[in-house]
Amino acid sequence: MRMSFPFSAIVGQDEMKLALLLAAVDARIGGVMVFGDRGTGKSTAVRALATLLPPVPASQAGFQSSELPPPAPKAMVPVPFVDLPLGATEDRVVGALDLERALGAGVKAFEPGLLARANGGFLYIDEVNLLEDHIVDLLLDVAASGENVVEREGLSVRHPARFVLVGSGNPEEGELRPQLLDRFGLSVEVRTPQDLATRVEILKRCDAFERAPEAFVESWRSAEKKTLKRIARGRAAVGQVTMPDAMLARASSLCMAVGADGLRGELTLMRAARALAALDGAAAVTTDHIARVAPLALRHRLRRGVLDETGSTVRITRALEELAA
Amino acid sequence: MRMSFPFSAIVGQDEMKLALLLAAVDARIGGVMVFGDRGTGKSTAVRALATLLPPVPASQAGFQSSELPPPAPKAMVPVPFVDLPLGATEDRVVGALDLERALGAGVKAFEPGLLARANGGFLYIDEVNLLEDHIVDLLLDVAASGENVVEREGLSVRHPARFVLVGSGNPEEGELRPQLLDRFGLSVEVRTPQDLATRVEILKRCDAFERAPEAFVESWRSAEKKTLKRIARGRAAVGQVTMPDAMLARASSLCMAVGADGLRGELTLMRAARALAALDGAAAVTTDHIARVAPLALRHRLRRGVLDETGSTVRITRALEELAA
Amino acid sequence: MRMSFPFSAIVGQDEMKLALLLAAVDARIGGVMVFGDRGTGKSTAVRALATLLPPVPASQAGFQSSELPPPAPKAMVPVPFVDLPLGATEDRVVGALDLERALGAGVKAFEPGLLARANGGFLYIDEVNLLEDHIVDLLLDVAASGENVVEREGLSVRHPARFVLVGSGNPEEGELRPQLLDRFGLSVEVRTPQDLATRVEILKRCDAFERAPEAFVESWRSAEKKTLKRIARGRAAVGQVTMPDAMLARASSLCMAVGADGLRGELTLMRAARALAALDGAAAVTTDHIARVAPLALRHRLRRGVLDETGSTVRITRALEELAA
Amino acid sequence: MRMSFPFSAIVGQDEMKLALLLAAVDARIGGVMVFGDRGTGKSTAVRALATLLPPVPASQAGFQSSELPPPAPKAMVPVPFVDLPLGATEDRVVGALDLERALGAGVKAFEPGLLARANGGFLYIDEVNLLEDHIVDLLLDVAASGENVVEREGLSVRHPARFVLVGSGNPEEGELRPQLLDRFGLSVEVRTPQDLATRVEILKRCDAFERAPEAFVESWRSAEKKTLKRIARGRAAVGQVTMPDAMLARASSLCMAVGADGLRGELTLMRAARALAALDGAAAVTTDHIARVAPLALRHRLRRGVLDETGSTVRITRALEELAA
Amino acid sequence: MRMSFPFSAIVGQDEMKLALLLAAVDARIGGVMVFGDRGTGKSTAVRALATLLPPVPASQAGFQSSELPPPAPKAMVPVPFVDLPLGATEDRVVGALDLERALGAGVKAFEPGLLARANGGFLYIDEVNLLEDHIVDLLLDVAASGENVVEREGLSVRHPARFVLVGSGNPEEGELRPQLLDRFGLSVEVRTPQDLATRVEILKRCDAFERAPEAFVESWRSAEKKTLKRIARGRAAVGQVTMPDAMLARASSLCMAVGADGLRGELTLMRAARALAALDGAAAVTTDHIARVAPLALRHRLRRGVLDETGSTVRITRALEELAA
Amino acid sequence: MRMSFPFSAIVGQDEMKLALLLAAVDARIGGVMVFGDRGTGKSTAVRALATLLPPVPASQAGFQSSELPPPAPKAMVPVPFVDLPLGATEDRVVGALDLERALGAGVKAFEPGLLARANGGFLYIDEVNLLEDHIVDLLLDVAASGENVVEREGLSVRHPARFVLVGSGNPEEGELRPQLLDRFGLSVEVRTPQDLATRVEILKRCDAFERAPEAFVESWRSAEKKTLKRIARGRAAVGQVTMPDAMLARASSLCMAVGADGLRGELTLMRAARALAALDGAAAVTTDHIARVAPLALRHRLRRGVLDETGSTVRITRALEELAA
Repeated sequence: MRMSFPFSAIVGQDEMKLALLLAAVDARIGGVMVFGDRGTGKSTAVRALATLLPPVPASQAGFQSSELPPPAPKAMVPVPFVDLPLGATEDRVVGALDLERALGAGVKAFEPGLLARANGGFLYIDEVNLLEDHIVDLLLDVAASGENVVEREGLSVRHPARFVLVGSGNPEEGELRPQLLDRFGLSVEVRTPQDLATRVEILKRCDAFERAPEAFVESWRSAEKKTLKRIARGRAAVGQVTMPDAMLARASSLCMAVGADGLRGELTLMRAARALAALDGAAAVTTDHIARVAPLALRHRLRRGVLDETGSTVRITRALEELAA
Repeated sequence: MRMSFPFSAIVGQDEMKLALLLAAVDARIGGVMVFGDRGTGKSTAVRALATLLPPVPASQAGFQSSELPPPAPKAMVPVPFVDLPLGATEDRVVGALDLERALGAGVKAFEPGLLARANGGFLYIDEVNLLEDHIVDLLLDVAASGENVVEREGLSVRHPARFVLVGSGNPEEGELRPQLLDRFGLSVEVRTPQDLATRVEILKRCDAFERAPEAFVESWRSAEKKTLKRIARGRAAVGQVTMPDAMLARASSLCMAVGADGLRGELTLMRAARALAALDGAAAVTTDHIARVAPLALRHRLRRGVLDETGSTVRITRALEELAA
Repeated sequence: MRMSFPFSAIVGQDEMKLALLLAAVDARIGGVMVFGDRGTGKSTAVRALATLLPPVPASQAGFQSSELPPPAPKAMVPVPFVDLPLGATEDRVVGALDLERALGAGVKAFEPGLLARANGGFLYIDEVNLLEDHIVDLLLDVAASGENVVEREGLSVRHPARFVLVGSGNPEEGELRPQLLDRFGLSVEVRTPQDLATRVEILKRCDAFERAPEAFVESWRSAEKKTLKRIARGRAAVGQVTMPDAMLARASSLCMAVGADGLRGELTLMRAARALAALDGAAAVTTDHIARVAPLALRHRLRRGVLDETGSTVRITRALEELAA
Repeated sequence: MRMSFPFSAIVGQDEMKLALLLAAVDARIGGVMVFGDRGTGKSTAVRALATLLPPVPASQAGFQSSELPPPAPKAMVPVPFVDLPLGATEDRVVGALDLERALGAGVKAFEPGLLARANGGFLYIDEVNLLEDHIVDLLLDVAASGENVVEREGLSVRHPARFVLVGSGNPEEGELRPQLLDRFGLSVEVRTPQDLATRVEILKRCDAFERAPEAFVESWRSAEKKTLKRIARGRAAVGQVTMPDAMLARASSLCMAVGADGLRGELTLMRAARALAALDGAAAVTTDHIARVAPLALRHRLRRGVLDETGSTVRITRALEELAA
Repeated sequence: MRMSFPFSAIVGQDEMKLALLLAAVDARIGGVMVFGDRGTGKSTAVRALATLLPPVPASQAGFQSSELPPPAPKAMVPVPFVDLPLGATEDRVVGALDLERALGAGVKAFEPGLLARANGGFLYIDEVNLLEDHIVDLLLDVAASGENVVEREGLSVRHPARFVLVGSGNPEEGELRPQLLDRFGLSVEVRTPQDLATRVEILKRCDAFERAPEAFVESWRSAEKKTLKRIARGRAAVGQVTMPDAMLARASSLCMAVGADGLRGELTLMRAARALAALDGAAAVTTDHIARVAPLALRHRLRRGVLDETGSTVRITRALEELAA
Repeated sequence: MRMSFPFSAIVGQDEMKLALLLAAVDARIGGVMVFGDRGTGKSTAVRALATLLPPVPASQAGFQSSELPPPAPKAMVPVPFVDLPLGATEDRVVGALDLERALGAGVKAFEPGLLARANGGFLYIDEVNLLEDHIVDLLLDVAASGENVVEREGLSVRHPARFVLVGSGNPEEGELRPQLLDRFGLSVEVRTPQDLATRVEILKRCDAFERAPEAFVESWRSAEKKTLKRIARGRAAVGQVTMPDAMLARASSLCMAVGADGLRGELTLMRAARALAALDGAAAVTTDHIARVAPLALRHRLRRGVLDETGSTVRITRALEELAA
């Protein structure tokens, strides 16, 4: 079994790491869309987080046909991580008729697909803009509802499919439709670092991991434990964090100021700010929490004015300053 | 089982709620097309209405193969609500050859599809403009005739399929052909609310529902009962509401004034005005009823003049005023 | 079973009703193409005529596999009316291999399609311009020859398929190729009526029919009987109506004057004029019969001059006047 | 069984009738391509000739699987006439695996197609320009070699397929590639007659045939016999007609003068002139025979000069005159 | 069985005949691409050569499944000639799963295709530019390696497929990609002869062959024997012909001078010059041999300068003269 | 069995030979993309290297279904070389359901494909730009991860697939997307040599090999042994070569200077420099090693400035000089 690069050993990429932690604390925040250069270790980070998280009860990870014997009551399994392979057919994604049993026993049984396997964990799609729109749409539908509804080949099945969807894409290669983008909870940008020291540090860590993976993982064990504790604290606290009315008004005002269509922007902002407060151990959401998650929650939802060349992040920052003023 | 957000707790969106109530009173009015921004809770409203309605006799909901044992004579079931999943194949929509029985018993049996399941209830299609024209056409045909006629794979089946079809779409993403639009009975527009108080109220209700669904639903129970009573009264009365000749002439004059092709406009206007009168407890249709439903019944049927930049709703309102003058 | 709106209760639409009556008297006239606005009751009229016509011997309606027991010698059945459902596959239109028997008994039997079912009656295609050309072509071929020749999947079958083909289309939505148009016997135009009294009358009749179908149908029974008698008289007489040489010359002269390609124009004109004379109880065709059917028989066959903006109907009327002068 | 319109009763269309007679005398001349207006009775003429010809030995008409019992040694059958139905699949044209026997007896048998059925007779394709190029090419290949070679689905079959291929097309609807045109032996043009007397005569004959087919056919019986005798004489004589060297030189000179690519032009001209001489009862080919068939053999083979607007027929006539001068 | 036109009786077409003889002497020279007008007897020449060649041992002609009994040790069979039929499926070209045996005996056996049948002989493709690129590519791959490697449907087979590939094409109908052209060993041009005497001679020979094939073939028997002896001598000698270094340098210099990409040009030139020397009975390659085959080996490999309108053949001739100077 | 041209006998092409040696020493460097003229012996070089390498344990070459008996523990087999045949289906590339066993024994077994067969060796794709993007992507994915993950037809299999991927392409025929190019480890350019002596030498060696392969291979045996020893030394040493921090900084600086996106450039540069040091027998990487592999590792990763017409290799060389200055 291949070892994973430790989450804590990732150099930089703070925004991406924050988004993944928020999604790990509250899955209702929705998927994460990662924009960025090629070769910046996007899938490495997602896989690293999945490996870091503690095992979950077998009954909450993946999904198996109801005809198999159920898992042992207290069995624990690693958090699922599914890297959607290129060329995976729609059948394998949503599940399909179990041909073997159909031909053998003459029974119309359901064979779970990758959505089932991702249940309770992460589903990563590299270059999401290369997938056909209707599959992306389907993945987002399932990710949002936490349920996979299959209506095909005479099958009619529904099963739990709660997972964090992470997509990556390069804006230079053709954009996603605004309607699809809007359904990702958060978006982050990753860039190739431009200072020599950082790049050499990354090279050194990659080299060390390549040449002696066990030793490298061992050397980061305590850093990993600290991150894990922070996530656990956030998960436990998120249900109790209060959201003052003033903060709700601030979230709405911000969305109106930057011109985000619909209400998904402020709903996500509310959930993400609460998750951040929980990660930080705060009892209530503050303006600081809102300011820190606003770019992640809103950046991909701004209507683009024809004359407005200002970048999305700048517009959000400026709107935050004006609200504060 | 997931709980539904209460119909009465929906903030604003008055036009959409009215259209759904009219369709609930008289299904012959035809489908409802919802234009509007993304993230404005369109499917929430439809599902909410389906949940609100009282159970119906099992024999009038859905449709099952005649070979299964019939439902118990007095069995009642919830009003069907079908949310057409993306990627549902045409087979599953209209029904298809039951492969399991064909291969097993060598019998050519019909396996009912989603149109059968929606019988007696609602069929919701998100982003109807993404469906292929011929499927939309087919859905509208079935919704209009109340009957699903299947002629494929050597099957020749017809079964009842009476349902309210609700489609949503974003005009920015490519329009429906006028011929298809014309076949929706009513159309409504939903917009993201632009005042802070409303938006904060929505955020609060969503948050409350997300965190404690049962308590939230309970707190709206009496409001729901009142809405339900109103629908029941409308359904009982609609057959007795009289339509004075002057009102028919008014409907026709209005259609001629705004330039609606064909006669579907005034037929729908007549039916919708009668349903509104019934909801209101009135014995006869009045000019007020016509005025209130005219935008819903006509807006999507106006011929577009090349030089006429006036919005559809404005043209209808102005024509109403001139008729009144 | 749904009741049909009475043919005689249709308000206006005289040209369409005339074309349907002519086709009912002599099927060799060929199909009828209906151009016109949406929502003008085109399919209602065709279905109404099919319902009006008297039952026919079971052996002349539809067509069944030769392996079923033949119908009782004197059995009578309603005139077939087939409304080509959207999404009907080519298999179902022309008929196909009977899979059930092929898989079960290992026999290559033919399963008749919709062309077989329409035999002896009417086949209606809404929005014929949405069908693929080769299917329209095939339907016209069968309608012209009265025979369905199937050469596919190893099948080689021919069976009678005599029916009146009625297609409707909206010229704004893409035209039919001239070659296809030319093969429809007659064409008619239907428009939304533009006077208030007519529109209100239509609304009232629709309303009356919707609310109490039996009573409405009963109130039109004697009008229906009169129409039926007229058709019966026409059918009996059409074989005896004489066609004076002067009338043949007039038909040819007219076709040459208006510039109709080929000879289908005058052949149809000859047949339609004779059918009209028969409907009218005349013993011979007169210039009046020719004048009344000329627009229906020729309008869709005129070559379009680049500089000639005059409408087809006007050109035909003018040519008739010049011939008369 | 439907009766055919008599070949001799066809009014005008001399060029088409000549081409069909030549092909009936010597099949090696190749197919006939008919250009012309719609509604000018093209298929009527071909079917009429097939009906006119005397029965042929059953062993030379059609082709059946070698596994069926052979036809009685002296059995005679009508000359095959196949009207390629629109929508006939490639399988049915060339023949295919006999699925019934493959599934039933597990044997890979060949099921003959329409090419087999046309063997010894005529294959008519209406609107040949609507067929895909590769099928036209295939039909021309088979027509030229007199043999159908099937290499598909694991089948490897060859059977005789000698027939006269007749295609019709309207040049306004998209042209055939020059390479395909070149492979038709002869081409003819048919136009709607433009004088009143001819048109009225056609109308009268059609009317007479429609109303009393048997009587009409009977009245043309002696004319048909005369035509038949002429064909029989031509067939018997064609092998003995001599072709003087001067005539070969004339044929080549003509082809060079009009600029026909390749040598198919003069080969066809030679064969057609000999067939015409045989029809006329002449012992040797003369300049008159060459002049009469030159337009049919060369018209569709002329290279089109960019600046040369002269019609093909005119260019051929002029070249003939210059050679004669 | 159809007789072939004798190779020696072909009038003119010297370049094509030379290319075919060279390929018959040394198959490693690669395929022959024939450019030229339609109707110039291209396939006739190839078939004629195949018929002329002496029978080969059955074990070296074609290829049969290893499960059939092997041919008798000394059995001789005619040289294979395969004329790729239009519409042959890829399955039949490369071979495929033997469905009959798969379904019957449940065995995955290979059914050889046309490539197998052509082994040891000629494969002719008319209008190679109408084939899809990937099939042409595949044919050239197999022709170059002498081996057919099949990797499909779970089959993994390789069998000998040594044959001379001859393709014909008309440059006016779309060109082959340079990459494909480059892989044909030789190319030749055939034109319609433009002098009357030649054309009349061709007509006479075609006529004589058509009317009495046996007599015609007999009259050319001694000419055919002479050609056959020449080929036999060439095949025996080609392994011993020496290639002086000066000649290698000349070949390379020529390729550099005319600007042929890559090294296939000079490799082919070397092989073709040696084959010509062998045909001529020379012991070593001379400048004359190189000059005579250079146009055939290089013409289709020249890079086309934008400003250079000089024809390929002229450029090669001129380069040869400069080298000689 | 065909003999391979010896690797050492290849004239020139130093860059390509270097890239193949580096990949043979450390497969993690990734695939090699070869740009260049047609006919320059690209596949010859790859096949030559595969033949040169010593046999490997059977358990590390290819991959077979787990149901077959395992290979003998110490069995050795030649290094796999797979030349992706044109027309190989995706099924055969990634492996597929074993139909024979599925139909026969009713078991869903996996039949390994070409990726499995290439395990432990080389996979060569000629004209990689003609393959569909998603297959190239898939091949690169597998080559990078060393594992083939199959999720299709109800199969869910993963097996080792460690191989060096070599693709060739001609930039004139359409480029690869930058995203795909970036995933090849190294790229090289091959050109037709332009001096007479080299070309004649190549001709002579090809001729000698063609006429007497065994003797030619024998004459190069000792040169081959020397190359083999060099590779063996490199493989043994590569794990011990040290990479000074200054060298890492140099690699990063170089990538920043030339504007290579992402970090794959410097990771590859690091790995390739270490492999070269190992081949050379050096204990640590030096600036010379970096300079020698930089063009191979970076050339295909440069962002193309609109105004910058300088070739990629020149930009890299210049940047190296500036860093040295």
